[in-house]
Amino acid sequence: MAETKVVQSGRGQFGPADWIRAAHRVLESRSIDAVRVEVLAKELGVTKGSFYWHFKDRDDLLQRMLTAWRDAATEQIIFRFESRGLSPRDLIRDLLALPFRGESAKEAAATELAIRAWARRDEAARNVLDEVDAKRLSYISECFRALGFSASEAKGRGFALYSYELSESLLSNQGTAKQKDERRAFMEKMLLAQLSSDKKA
Amino acid sequence: MAETKVVQSGRGQFGPADWIRAAHRVLESRSIDAVRVEVLAKELGVTKGSFYWHFKDRDDLLQRMLTAWRDAATEQIIFRFESRGLSPRDLIRDLLALPFRGESAKEAAATELAIRAWARRDEAARNVLDEVDAKRLSYISECFRALGFSASEAKGRGFALYSYELSESLLSNQGTAKQKDERRAFMEKMLLAQLSSDKKA
Repeated sequence: MAETKVVQSGRGQFGPADWIRAAHRVLESRSIDAVRVEVLAKELGVTKGSFYWHFKDRDDLLQRMLTAWRDAATEQIIFRFESRGLSPRDLIRDLLALPFRGESAKEAAATELAIRAWARRDEAARNVLDEVDAKRLSYISECFRALGFSASEAKGRGFALYSYELSESLLSNQGTAKQKDERRAFMEKMLLAQLSSDKKA
Repeated sequence: MAETKVVQSGRGQFGPADWIRAAHRVLESRSIDAVRVEVLAKELGVTKGSFYWHFKDRDDLLQRMLTAWRDAATEQIIFRFESRGLSPRDLIRDLLALPFRGESAKEAAATELAIRAWARRDEAARNVLDEVDAKRLSYISECFRALGFSASEAKGRGFALYSYELSESLLSNQGTAKQKDERRAFMEKMLLAQLSSDKKA
């Protein structure tokens, strides 16, 4: 994370979105335990008191962090699957390439891993994460359904593709760029191939 | 996690392994920031001073937590792949069933997710995790190699299987027991099937 301290010019300078962004930065670089009013006030260079202009308390902030992340993740789903009019096959290629989209993909993955860590021990975070995961899995499976796979095969392939995406970010140090490219190409081939029972190894 | 407070009977009662176990419990239920000498001493019901009989400082404890986890993970790899003499195909079935092995699998997954969260922001944790991931990926790929898949296909299949395992623990709330069973069966079918270029969808 880049240094983000800003010069204070008055307590009305920062809106709720600024506090939420600062809270996400602290969550990513440390953990949810570190997301405390005094830490954020220091990060933004304002008084603790100004926090309470926008939030009832810390719990209110945490809830709004989750809502902000869910809304951004949902918008991203809609952008990816609905607004660009890609064919199902191109969508699948697009999803497979997602973990390699440079800095923005890395940042989104870092945020998401931090939220997964938080969700291990917080029910509200768990619920929001489950909701986003379910929506993504359902959209991905729809792509395979549109390619003619059965409902059950489409779900299996959807889960395999989403697993691959999650794991490329968890296992980002495994393999060279060339090896990552090879496994991406292999995943595409495997996920798009028909299975016939007489062709099993 | 079950309540683990123990009655103190003297400062020599707890060895390094007890402190390390307590530290892992705190890592799992909270985060690495919460792993501090005073927290652990309270958890074990002993004085802070007794910590320094066994550890130079907190960093020494953190390093030994990582070593303990790596050794346990490595032993588990050896048990799984070398000591039981299973056929490659049975090993693959065994690995696919791993996320569903009841409480012990859940606990191991919780520990591992906590270490992945820690590794996001600590190089020593990252290195140990990378080492374990690399070893597991290499063993899994060997199973596919032994079934006659090419080196590159075996690596791709190995990565897909490991991704599936990691994701079943990350996405444990997605789907009913029946749906999980279906996707496991589908993964087995897909991972063991030959791909032929003329059979693509």
